[in-house]
Amino acid sequence: MSDAARALQDYLDDAIPLVRAMQVEVRAAGPAAVVLHAPLAPNRNHQSTAFGGSVAGLATLACWGWLWTVLQEGYAGIELVVAHSEIDYLKPVTTGLVARCDAPPQAAQHALLEALARRGRGRLALAAAVEDEAGVLCAQFTGRFVADRRRP
Amino acid sequence: MSDAARALQDYLDDAIPLVRAMQVEVRAAGPAAVVLHAPLAPNRNHQSTAFGGSVAGLATLACWGWLWTVLQEGYAGIELVVAHSEIDYLKPVTTGLVARCDAPPQAAQHALLEALARRGRGRLALAAAVEDEAGVLCAQFTGRFVADRRRP
Repeated sequence: MSDAARALQDYLDDAIPLVRAMQVEVRAAGPAAVVLHAPLAPNRNHQSTAFGGSVAGLATLACWGWLWTVLQEGYAGIELVVAHSEIDYLKPVTTGLVARCDAPPQAAQHALLEALARRGRGRLALAAAVEDEAGVLCAQFTGRFVADRRRP
Repeated sequence: MSDAARALQDYLDDAIPLVRAMQVEVRAAGPAAVVLHAPLAPNRNHQSTAFGGSVAGLATLACWGWLWTVLQEGYAGIELVVAHSEIDYLKPVTTGLVARCDAPPQAAQHALLEALARRGRGRLALAAAVEDEAGVLCAQFTGRFVADRRRP
């Protein structure tokens, strides 16, 4: 596990009790992408497929985790929150879950950093795909995240 | 606790491990509304406010629980899944969470029952409000749910 993945794993485990309940594992964390895994058993629903709340929660964590990872350098301690999200559940997940947030376009990243430098606050749209362990796309998530260094 | 609330509580506790991890309590369940509560401690995030995944998960469960409750009579065993959802996070939640799904318009309920009778499958849009324990609105959720009695 890379240093960045270990740092994100430790932070999530420590800060969010549901991360441990969901048994979330950071598989990769860096400027290019964050990839999270969660086993089915603690995240199952009444049909023994993945609970929608777990699917959306893991996707939210992947996006939040990407933003946290890229802002560690120079912006540690900044507040990061999700403001809005949407998710399409495409197929039931019958295995463990893999959520992946890829870096958004460079222009959007630069706009966020400029807004943070000028106003101490910026927003960024992020997307995550949730796949099963065979790589089949099962849900698509988009979220609008806010980074704010003016808050405590 | 009413019989309907007890039935929903038992079903959720048994079927979805995350319901116990989140310490979800069914406060009311009936044709008019389903109201769920979850304490802050197991649902907190890095800011000691409610984790977005918990907020969205509780709202999803309130809507799903309303549909399950009203379909128990005549449609027990039918498959109910969430197909799409959106959530606006309006304010951080600093106390326990209360999610409430009110019955949708009668016309929408009738359309669902007609579709179930004719095709064995129907869909319904539901909304849930998430408030803090002082009754302040903190998040608004909408979801599109599918009821299907053709699946196993």
